[in-house]
Formats: sequence, structure tokens, C-alpha cells
Amino acid sequence: MSSMHPVNHIKITSGMSAAELVKQMSASGVMGAGRIAKGAEILQKMLADKDCTVFFGQAGCMIPGGMKEIIHDILLTRRIRVFVTTGATLTHDTVEALGYKHYQGTASVDDAELNKKGLDRMYDSYMPNEVYEGLEDFFQKNWDALTKAKSIRELLDIIGSLLPKESILRICHELKIPVFCPALADSGIGLMIWGRLAAGKKLDIPAFDDMKEIISIAWDSKKNGVFYVGGGVPKNFCQQAMQFSKQASYGVQITTDRPEWGGSSGAELREGISWGKLEPNAEFVDVFCDATIALPLMWAAVRK
Amino acid sequence: MSSMHPVNHIKITSGMSAAELVKQMSASGVMGAGRIAKGAEILQKMLADKDCTVFFGQAGCMIPGGMKEIIHDILLTRRIRVFVTTGATLTHDTVEALGYKHYQGTASVDDAELNKKGLDRMYDSYMPNEVYEGLEDFFQKNWDALTKAKSIRELLDIIGSLLPKESILRICHELKIPVFCPALADSGIGLMIWGRLAAGKKLDIPAFDDMKEIISIAWDSKKNGVFYVGGGVPKNFCQQAMQFSKQASYGVQITTDRPEWGGSSGAELREGISWGKLEPNAEFVDVFCDATIALPLMWAAVRK
Amino acid sequence: MSSMHPVNHIKITSGMSAAELVKQMSASGVMGAGRIAKGAEILQKMLADKDCTVFFGQAGCMIPGGMKEIIHDILLTRRIRVFVTTGATLTHDTVEALGYKHYQGTASVDDAELNKKGLDRMYDSYMPNEVYEGLEDFFQKNWDALTKAKSIRELLDIIGSLLPKESILRICHELKIPVFCPALADSGIGLMIWGRLAAGKKLDIPAFDDMKEIISIAWDSKKNGVFYVGGGVPKNFCQQAMQFSKQASYGVQITTDRPEWGGSSGAELREGISWGKLEPNAEFVDVFCDATIALPLMWAAVRK
Amino acid sequence: MSSMHPVNHIKITSGMSAAELVKQMSASGVMGAGRIAKGAEILQKMLADKDCTVFFGQAGCMIPGGMKEIIHDILLTRRIRVFVTTGATLTHDTVEALGYKHYQGTASVDDAELNKKGLDRMYDSYMPNEVYEGLEDFFQKNWDALTKAKSIRELLDIIGSLLPKESILRICHELKIPVFCPALADSGIGLMIWGRLAAGKKLDIPAFDDMKEIISIAWDSKKNGVFYVGGGVPKNFCQQAMQFSKQASYGVQITTDRPEWGGSSGAELREGISWGKLEPNAEFVDVFCDATIALPLMWAAVRK
Repeated sequence: MSSMHPVNHIKITSGMSAAELVKQMSASGVMGAGRIAKGAEILQKMLADKDCTVFFGQAGCMIPGGMKEIIHDILLTRRIRVFVTTGATLTHDTVEALGYKHYQGTASVDDAELNKKGLDRMYDSYMPNEVYEGLEDFFQKNWDALTKAKSIRELLDIIGSLLPKESILRICHELKIPVFCPALADSGIGLMIWGRLAAGKKLDIPAFDDMKEIISIAWDSKKNGVFYVGGGVPKNFCQQAMQFSKQASYGVQITTDRPEWGGSSGAELREGISWGKLEPNAEFVDVFCDATIALPLMWAAVRK
Repeated sequence: MSSMHPVNHIKITSGMSAAELVKQMSASGVMGAGRIAKGAEILQKMLADKDCTVFFGQAGCMIPGGMKEIIHDILLTRRIRVFVTTGATLTHDTVEALGYKHYQGTASVDDAELNKKGLDRMYDSYMPNEVYEGLEDFFQKNWDALTKAKSIRELLDIIGSLLPKESILRICHELKIPVFCPALADSGIGLMIWGRLAAGKKLDIPAFDDMKEIISIAWDSKKNGVFYVGGGVPKNFCQQAMQFSKQASYGVQITTDRPEWGGSSGAELREGISWGKLEPNAEFVDVFCDATIALPLMWAAVRK
Repeated sequence: MSSMHPVNHIKITSGMSAAELVKQMSASGVMGAGRIAKGAEILQKMLADKDCTVFFGQAGCMIPGGMKEIIHDILLTRRIRVFVTTGATLTHDTVEALGYKHYQGTASVDDAELNKKGLDRMYDSYMPNEVYEGLEDFFQKNWDALTKAKSIRELLDIIGSLLPKESILRICHELKIPVFCPALADSGIGLMIWGRLAAGKKLDIPAFDDMKEIISIAWDSKKNGVFYVGGGVPKNFCQQAMQFSKQASYGVQITTDRPEWGGSSGAELREGISWGKLEPNAEFVDVFCDATIALPLMWAAVRK
Repeated sequence: MSSMHPVNHIKITSGMSAAELVKQMSASGVMGAGRIAKGAEILQKMLADKDCTVFFGQAGCMIPGGMKEIIHDILLTRRIRVFVTTGATLTHDTVEALGYKHYQGTASVDDAELNKKGLDRMYDSYMPNEVYEGLEDFFQKNWDALTKAKSIRELLDIIGSLLPKESILRICHELKIPVFCPALADSGIGLMIWGRLAAGKKLDIPAFDDMKEIISIAWDSKKNGVFYVGGGVPKNFCQQAMQFSKQASYGVQITTDRPEWGGSSGAELREGISWGKLEPNAEFVDVFCDATIALPLMWAAVRK
């Protein structure tokens, strides 16, 4: 037992900083608190490692969940080399950039009433249905510019160039962070594109070309690190880039899913070792927690 | 209380059929058992309703989880009008069609050892890494045929025409069931396409054209029904087709996710009413259960 | 790979029995389906092993969830040597024995309205509040008989002797199955006892004496087997009996909890090996599923 | 929409305090972050309300999880009127008071090896098995004092009087906080008592007498508030005290369980309104999160 670390109990002190709280969690070292602390440590290390190419995969209801500033802030560190996300995140972030807001609601509600009021519910966050009008205007007005894109990544870059500063796509445009979104069709932005196509417009964007770029970036790196908030396509798309290039040396994921169903979203990072997605001696941790709780706390510790 | 149904207790009898077990669950009417029964009833009704256009969205580790025959069987009823799935499902199903198998394993294992043995782990199911060779052969040999595709849907249809009978894509090819897979790039099949592109081959498949087809089908229906096994892109892609056409009249989903995080995968079907994805008076139910348990049981009751 | 079992896909056939469905799940052998099958196999083996003393620990909302007949049926096999449960289960089962019922309801309800109607909600199962009157009558009428008890186990045995045939406590009384319920105070039955004590009656039942009996039974066995439906006190009370006597040779648990929080309810059975509660070479499995689904299915396979 | 609050995005600033982070979560107001903030607000209000009698129910692996100082700190506010807990918590806290420690471990371990090393695992926290010797010494040495107890509550009070300052039971002894633990038999402390009884010693502690005291406290209050960390017996024992006295006016629970299984641990507080355990207009919130994450964060905000 001499080599073992005792569980030091977390001590809350007056006015303690969030970073100090996470440090206390590191000293306790077990259960969820220990994982929050370890996640923050590894994330910090990965971002500080100049040789590390950081892939940030993000899914889930983060913008309607109040995480916009934090995601922007992470991108603004200039340490994210690749951002992979869902069409939903880009839609939610873009509608806020266009001046709309999400609203605090409740899940104990008559959804038919919400529908009459024009409110689309995501658990206890509401999006006004009118955002589709604003989005449609944007796509109609800018269609010619968008048709210059030769890949989903380029399309998102052009959208970014047309959006106000406070948006994921504009930030990534300016910082030259490629944004990958393989299932962009599956989103409000996808629906706007469908609307244009249905109106007879043309858009020639190949479905598979982005893969070359993300795998090349992973290949050309000295080492790779992955940071996943949620699972789904963003996590898996990064994971397969690791599999067909260089195994990740660092890994942090925040998930509420479980491994027992066998799906990619709930898979422990450790599983990636069998696939050659993660180095056997990588530093990694799975944080099992609602990301709207874990991410702010970890980011407060990493950012300092 | 006179109008309320009592909870009748489930009675197990000698040699009882699985369908009879689900009938007993219907009589109990509460908790998970009640939802299994209600799910089977609504699924049966939706499949029997000649006016109903049925959308089947499926995600998660179903083929490595032993659900292949059941998914094939559901498609072979000829009552599925649209199948939306993940690239992973199509990859797993295709490698089995090409003669490979998945293997019974364990999660309590040294993943580095598995990696040396060439086994890719999905919780307690192993896929031999050599499947990628078979897949690569298939794509190399059939590349010219595949390049005739003008959409992901057409690409999958052509792949189906080239596969043996015992496969999702061949069954759907023969029964003219369109298969949609917006994030096909994010899969083993996607990687094979990347391999060809990296080798200088061309493939011109637009990323957004399938949306027109799925939304048209939903528009042209008398009424729609949705059946979701798992969440992710398949569920959401069907849901947005409902939102921009006709609200679903029937809905059944099997999920292990929770609604509280706000994501699409864990969202209760009821939430879709606010979005105009589900009719307020639709028949629907959420089944909170591992799909490898719930789906066989429900299908045994529906199929009879 | 030659030594590995392939994942055989579950095949649903017309009129197939529930037992045959579980056999198919055994052939698939992975994920939740595989665990259901393994659970049924081990449970069957444990019940068939004449040398095995079977401890059945049960918690959770099973009687309002429609599981009464199955729990009775398991006890009626005469293969359960010890039953450990919660006060809630005994209360729910007893009120049904006294002629009351639980009712099918919904969780989407105004709980204040339910309160006015005298309905107590357990998710989507309702218990009429009037059951407390029937319970109170029973305890008032039989108080003198009950005061003869010298332990909680004896108290429950006397209650059983006074109840109709269709009840856990009467079945256990007749079959001489000791029923342990360390937290009986924490239940409707406990409240009835409080009512009598508050009215000045006396009851002299020592809190710790049952421990001697359960640990003795575990000591005097040739080998032990544990079957847990849910966690809480019933599981832990059996587990500590194993720890201080003979490690279990068989173990099956059905749980919806997770191991990551460190609590007893979600702990994998494997963890018990470190404590000396489970033999390192025991046959055991954790089934991660709603018990109202898993238990009927497994019992249909075990009972045949 | 004019009456709705927008989701304000959480902003992380340099050196921000944990309390400020929770304030930001209050401004976002949705999902898990919103619930953490609301939980902290209601807990603070309940503790500040001089008319409120606060019941603190705590279950789960909190001491081996690093929460000892926080639990002590909450008790030391002198605002907790009743503490209800598990035998496991009291055992873990007592063995630390006797000089033992818990250790940081891992769940990816051979439990048979741990067993040989004398380490008992709780997920990734290890307890040395030798703690039972220290516990046994304590109970042997102090047995005569303990036999003076006339209830479990008194027994725990006497144990507290004999322990060092840094322990739940000593703190509660000094502050005259009654500690209720209906299932004390189900714990290491229970096992020590069993050891004495097995050695022929006597202990006459009635199982049901504590109920009178907890219900009286709830009756005699102006209003009640409940704070639950975890579910199980502690939550339910408080809940039934509310049911048979005064409904709670404030409620905060931290849980990782789900409501759909119908059990008490996962039940939403709202359900208690139907039972008459919670006022329809009470202030209450369910926080769905690992308590080793949620509790430190909330306590940092409440304590300030």
C-alpha cells in the first residue's frame, strides 16, 4: 500500500477558484471527480504540447445548452487544428450569429402548445421556429458565394466568411481551422440547402472529399490528440482518421453514454487501442458526465 | 378509479411463446414491460396500415450485436419504405456478406493484445481487422460500377446489386427500398472510398441530393410512421424529413439514451410534437432498453 | 480466431417460444442479448444445483411494475433458501394480498391532481392512497399476534401466516423461506408499526438479530448462489453475508445502475471478488436492463 | 417570447471562482448546468430559511469518493436538523476516523489479485481489508458503552461520543444532530455488532423506535426541506417522514438514477407531490449528475 495514493478529501474554501476546485478533485483522484481532474490535466497537456495536432470532436445539444462561449473560447486558443461537429451545432450557432436566441424553458410542457407558439423544444431549451426564416434569407442572399465551395469543409468556410465574428464558423474561417461535418445534410443548414435545390438551384459538393483532408492532417502530424464532447459522427470521424494514420497520444472524452451497448458514442477510449486508434501508452480518460456541467468546470481549470 | 386499468401481473407459463409474453406485458401495462408491449403494438399497426409510409432509422452496434437476421427480416416484410442507417451498420453487414464474421469476446481484455491479434473490439464483440482487405478488394474490383452513382442512395443501391443475397443492401436493392446514409463517409465503407480517391480515382457524388428524395417520399405519403432503433443521424434525418413534410402518425423508438441532455438521440418522441415532426394525436412510445434485448422481443411479437 | 465463437444472428420464427428466443440470444452471445441468455443459464444452473444455497435479493418497484406472479413463482420453485427484499416490495405485495390493486397510469400528469384523487405515483403506476386504511386495519386487528415476534424475520413470518395465499409472505411462511428486510422501518409496513407505537403499543424487535441467521445459513451451506433483481439493501445484505462466510459460486444480477459511481447497487459482481464475496472462478453475469423486461424473459427461459 | 429568459452562454474568465461559475450556470439556466445552479440556489435558500427544518439524506460511495470534508462541512453549518445515511457511509467515515485511509485505484484490475493484497474495491477506490480489525477493536473495547443505547439513533450518538473530532458521528454528537440509519445492520458496523452477538454478547436495540423521532421532528417543524445526495433508504426514509407529517417546502436531489424504472432512488422529486411528500408549490430540482462532481460544485457556490 506504500505506493498507493490516498483519497484526499475535497475541501471547499471561501471564494475558491474553479481551477482550485478541480485541483482538489485531482487530489481525491477517484470516481467522477477524479476523472474531471484527469480530463482537465490531459486536455491542458495536449493543448500545451507543441508537437500535438489536436482534433476536437463535438456533438450534442451544446449551443442550446449554453456552451457557445466556451466552444468559441476553445477554438480561439489557436490550439485546435481540426474541428468536427454536427450540423445541429452549426445550425444553432449560426442562428445565434444571425441574431436569434435560445430560451430557457421546461420539459414539463404541452408540446402541442409549444408548437402553436412556434417554439421547438430541446429538453428544456426552446428555439423559436422563426430562425428558419433568417437562415433561409441568409442562404438565399449568399447562394452564389456558397456554390463556389468544392467540399463541405469549403462550404462551411465560406459560410464562416459571411457570418459575424461571434460564431464558430467565422472564428474557424479566420483561424484557418478546417471544420468537418460529414452529416451536414442532417441539419437545419442541410434543410436550407435542400430548399435551394428544391427551387432548382445547383450545388456541386462531393460527399467524400473531406476525408482526404482530415486523414492527411492526421498523417502529417508529429502526434495526435483527440478531445470529444459527446459521441456520434464527430467522435467516430476523428477516430477513423486516427485508425488510418497515427494513433492518438492523448485522449479526453466527455460522455453520458455507456459502453455496454457496443456503440461508438459510449465506447471507452481504451477500446480504441484494439483498433489502432489510440496508442497503448497514451494518456487518456473517459469523463462520464453531462457536458454542460463537465465542460465548463474542466475549461475553467484548463484556461485558468 | 373505475376508469383505470389495473396492473395485471405477468404470468409465465410452460413453453409460452415470445408473442404471448409480450401480450402479458401489455396486460401489465407499466414501466419497461408496458413500453415493450406498446412498442410492439404500434409497430404492428404501422406496418399493417396500408396508408402508412414507414421510415426505419437504425443506428448502434446492431450487426456485431447479433441483430442482422432481424433487420433483414424487417426489411423483407416489404413494409419499410425508407431505410436510414449508419455507415457502420452498412460496413458490418457488408463484411458479413463478403464472408467474414464477428466474434464473441469480452470487454475485460487487454486491448493492446487484441490489437496484436488483429481484432477490433466493440464492447464484447470482435471484428477481425482483415475485413478491410476484403472490403478493399470489393471496392477495387467494382469501382467502375460504383462511379455511375449520382447520389449516396444510388451508390448504396449499386453496392447492393453486387452483394450476395444475405445483406441489407442487396435486400433493399431487390425490394427497391432506398437506403439513406448521410454520414457514409464516416465508416469503413467511407474509408474504402477514401482509399480509391487517395489512389487518384474519381467519384462525383453530391452530398445533399438525397435530401430531396427522402423529403419527397415523406411529402407524397398519405401518412408517415417512424421506427427508430438507436438515435444519431438516422433518427434525426427521418425526423427532419417529417418536420419539412408531414408529421408522423406513428412513432416507436428504442433507445438507451436519456432526454435530460437535450440531444436528438435521447429526445422523447413527444418532443417532436413541438417541432411539427409528430402529430399531437399520434400513437407513439419510447422504449428505454438495450436494443439487442428489446428488438428481438418486440419483433417476435410483431412477426408472430 | 479458430477458438472463438462467431456471433450467430438471432432468428425470429413463427410462434417461437420465449425460451427459444433466449436460446437464440445465447447463440449470439454478445451485448445485452448475450447477457440475458447467460443470466438465464446461470440462474437455471444455480437453481438445479442441489448443493447450492440460493439467496434471492430483490429491490425496486417490482410489484407495481407487474412482477408479482413471477416473484411468487420463483419462490414457489422451493429452490430459494433466503429472500431479502425491501419494505416497499413487502408493502406493495401485502396491499395486493389485502385486495387492493395498482393501476396503469402515466408520468405525464399533474401530480397535484393525482394527490387530490388519492393516487400515489410510481413513475407510470398508481397506488390508491386508501391502501393505508386497509393496512392499518390489518395491523390493528393482528397486533397481538405480531408482538410475539422476536426478530424482523419472525415478524414477517407471522404477517405471512395471516395473509391470503397469494402473497410473498404467505408463500415464504408456508415454504419456510426466511424473509430478511433490514430496513423494514423504511416502508408502508414500517409506518403502520410506527402508528401502533405512536398509539402507545409496544413492540420489542431487536434490529440486529437477523444477521446471525443469514450469516449462519451462508456458513452452513455447501456452496452459495446469489440472484439480485435491483440493488440497494437487499443486494448488499446478501453480499456481506457472503463476505463473512462462504464466497458465492454463482451470481446473476439485473441492474440499471452503472459501476462508475462506486455504489453497491451498480457495482459489477466481479468487484465482489476483491472483497471475498464471490469466488474468482464463480459463474456470474451482470444484466444491464430494466428488470420488468429482463426478469420475465429470463424466467420464461429458466422455468420452461 | 418577451417573457422568456434567453439562454445566456457560460463565460469562463481567468481565475473565476467556483461560485461565479455556478452563477454563470444560473444565467444559462438549462440542462445539467441550469440544474446545478438551481440546486445550489434552493439549497442555499433552504439553509438560510430559519423556519425550515432541513433533512439531509445521503447514500452512495461518498467517503471512498473523496466527499468526507464536504459532508462534515455541511453538517458543521449547524443548519442540518436530521441526517439520514447508510451503514456504509458511517463505516467508511468511522474507519477513516480510526486512522485508516481509502486509496486511489482503478477498475481495470484483477480482483483476485486485489483480494490477495487485502484490498476491497469500490469501482476505482480501494479500502484495505485491515480496517475490519480496527473496527472490531473499537467495538470490543467500547461494547459496554454501546449497550446503553435504546435505539439505533442513540447507538450512533454513543459511537460518535467515542470517536475523534473528524468524523460524521462525532460532529453530529456534538451538534446534537440525530443520525438515522434504518439499515445499519447492512454494513461493516452491522457486521461488528453481529460479531459481538455471535460471541454471546447482548444488545437490545429495537428496530422501529427511531421512526417516532424522525416523524415527530418533521411534525413539529414550521416547514421542512429535503436535500438528497443519492437515493436508497436515506431518501425514502426522509420522504416517508414528509408523507406522514408536513410536506417539504424545499427539495434538492442529486442522482444518477432514472425515473423510468419506478424505483424510489430515481424518482423525480415532483412525483412526491402525488404522495403528499412535497408541496405542489415547493421549490425543488433534480440534479442528474455524479455526486462527486455535482456536490463539490454546488457546495462551493452555497458556502461561498
